[in-house]
Amino acid sequence: MDMKSKFSEKVKHLEASAIREMFKLMIRPEIISFAGGSPASELFPKDELAEIAKDILQNNSGVALQYGVTEGYAPLAEWVEKRLDKAGIVHDTDSIIIVSGGQQGIDLAAKSLLNAGDGVVCEEPSFIGGLNSFRSYNAEIYGVPMEDDGIDTDALEKTLKAHPNIKVLYTIATFQNPTGITMSLEKRKRVLELAEKYDFIIFEDNPYGELRFAGEDIPTIKSLDTYNRVVYFGSFSKILAPGLRLGFSCADKYLTDRMVVCKQVQDVHTSLLPQMLAYEFVTRYSIDEHILKLRKVYGSRCRLMIDCMEKYFPKCITHTNPQGGLFLFCAMPDGYDTKIIMQKAVEQNVAFVPGATTMIDISKTYSTFRMNYSASNEEKIETGIKRLGKVLYDTVGE
Amino acid sequence: MDMKSKFSEKVKHLEASAIREMFKLMIRPEIISFAGGSPASELFPKDELAEIAKDILQNNSGVALQYGVTEGYAPLAEWVEKRLDKAGIVHDTDSIIIVSGGQQGIDLAAKSLLNAGDGVVCEEPSFIGGLNSFRSYNAEIYGVPMEDDGIDTDALEKTLKAHPNIKVLYTIATFQNPTGITMSLEKRKRVLELAEKYDFIIFEDNPYGELRFAGEDIPTIKSLDTYNRVVYFGSFSKILAPGLRLGFSCADKYLTDRMVVCKQVQDVHTSLLPQMLAYEFVTRYSIDEHILKLRKVYGSRCRLMIDCMEKYFPKCITHTNPQGGLFLFCAMPDGYDTKIIMQKAVEQNVAFVPGATTMIDISKTYSTFRMNYSASNEEKIETGIKRLGKVLYDTVGE
Repeated sequence: MDMKSKFSEKVKHLEASAIREMFKLMIRPEIISFAGGSPASELFPKDELAEIAKDILQNNSGVALQYGVTEGYAPLAEWVEKRLDKAGIVHDTDSIIIVSGGQQGIDLAAKSLLNAGDGVVCEEPSFIGGLNSFRSYNAEIYGVPMEDDGIDTDALEKTLKAHPNIKVLYTIATFQNPTGITMSLEKRKRVLELAEKYDFIIFEDNPYGELRFAGEDIPTIKSLDTYNRVVYFGSFSKILAPGLRLGFSCADKYLTDRMVVCKQVQDVHTSLLPQMLAYEFVTRYSIDEHILKLRKVYGSRCRLMIDCMEKYFPKCITHTNPQGGLFLFCAMPDGYDTKIIMQKAVEQNVAFVPGATTMIDISKTYSTFRMNYSASNEEKIETGIKRLGKVLYDTVGE
Repeated sequence: MDMKSKFSEKVKHLEASAIREMFKLMIRPEIISFAGGSPASELFPKDELAEIAKDILQNNSGVALQYGVTEGYAPLAEWVEKRLDKAGIVHDTDSIIIVSGGQQGIDLAAKSLLNAGDGVVCEEPSFIGGLNSFRSYNAEIYGVPMEDDGIDTDALEKTLKAHPNIKVLYTIATFQNPTGITMSLEKRKRVLELAEKYDFIIFEDNPYGELRFAGEDIPTIKSLDTYNRVVYFGSFSKILAPGLRLGFSCADKYLTDRMVVCKQVQDVHTSLLPQMLAYEFVTRYSIDEHILKLRKVYGSRCRLMIDCMEKYFPKCITHTNPQGGLFLFCAMPDGYDTKIIMQKAVEQNVAFVPGATTMIDISKTYSTFRMNYSASNEEKIETGIKRLGKVLYDTVGE
């Protein structure tokens, strides 16, 4: 039998994440890759986690290896709740669940809320993992351009007027993926007002928020929400380790209840050993000190990358100036196709993410690209940017 | 805003797994619970896993803690493929993925194949986690009664004739949950012929297959499949540890490709440390020796439970005679409601799973119940069955 004839409508046209597919090609050790979204491996607290893991498995294996509850390992969920509460994120009507990476939180909320044909409006460019989840429930995706201080809220309102089917706004308001841009306080308030006026729900995806290395903190949209309209997603991937697959959601308790039922059918519960590792780490050590270390390293890598770009890139190539997170976003003059330039770059053993993979219509041509600075050390950043500079000069001329 | 007004059609009416909800109430230490589906905690190879975990995190943290590929940790996937290949399960056109528990395999295949209104036919009683996944994609569920040698294939054919929308048969052919019944070879062949005749796909969920403690092995349906109609799901939950959340699927490569895209949006990839733990365990130790130990213990617990039932239960109560797995299934005379009896049992500090939670229409009254023998030691089995016997005698009389 031809299985292809049986595919459901929702998944037939889904494309595998181009970033993750590229990821597989980039294992060639001579490639300097600015394409991933990986935190710095050398900063993982591996010795601490090794001791903790041994301790948990020897002394608490009945919990670590046995079935657990879908909502998550209670001590970790309580720790997350306290931490979010301090930041004003948890409201009286909210509940927390521990999920298998922030991505799962988005997917559970999407499944709980989206019918086929419902609209999701997002920043454009945006994070393809979020968009693909919405697509997998047959939602319609609408993009709104980014400005230096976040989503263009006037364009957003126009889109909302034009598409009354919009049920969800997906935003990475802080150190956005892929642009590194942070939404201003003013725009956060405006977005909330629009949510109330046009009756939609805001998915605030905040995996990078703790990684600020410049400027002043801005309150999360969730902490400003007095309408019960924000579903908040956080992650241990960037502050501890992505391989653990640990994240959390904070949302209205009735919605959380639906998300829990969906999580039961997805994976019953998040693997317990990673949950216990994270809990013991934050209990025995200071996660804030660890985060400070990450901020320092990522800040210096970001500044170095920008310095190198200004030295080695053609002058016509612009870049964003992130105050945190893992990414900056570059633009060539209009008309260039960074998918083609990417291939030339890989030939020169350097890689980035072409802008197309961050856009809603990936078949079009875009002259933008995303650069990750967290995963490469100083030497690699300098060498890689030099290599990429050459490829860009070859393309745009002097 | 009232979030409830925004729920998607597919999740609005989903009920949380009654078993998992009960699970939460049964943490009272004085309760002897035969209700779970847990393997024996005391048989987890905790010291071995503790050493391995420490070793992995100290010496291979760059892999264990960093992002990985969606298909799974390659050495583990290759090991699974070899093991399944030996059992004739892998066909040339198949691919393997490592999933976050067998449940995720079912859910990914369901999402990849089921449109709203598609039919899924299942054994009745069956495993509610599977059925809830199908429901969460708005599929219609049809039940077919069980006989001593598996699903009633004549009734199955009648159901197939009556419901041409049926796209999937969901079966736990070996040591079924909840009955412990194993489908005969003859019926396995018949089911395959029906699949070809009525053009449906078979989901063969096989988490218990390796836990045979009596009788002779019967080939999996997947190994008999010459039509490319079987999607196979396996699990490390019952042979290693469920808290790790590790399973695998073996299916047509095109379907697997769709499942991988769906897994990307669900959790990006399965947590790496559990995958590496499992791989290192099966490499450094003999999983077959470990499984032999489990079989021996579960076989003796099953026999003890049956002996105790024959001693302490009213004669009118029947039970299945499983040759493996974790469960046996009991029936009271018609007319009794085991949901009510369950409450009385819990008052007497003993628990089981009422039959209703294993049926498609959980609102009806059923006189059946599921008993787990793997998670309780000899003393608890004897004491618990004695307690339950009293409750049953109080209900049905002498």
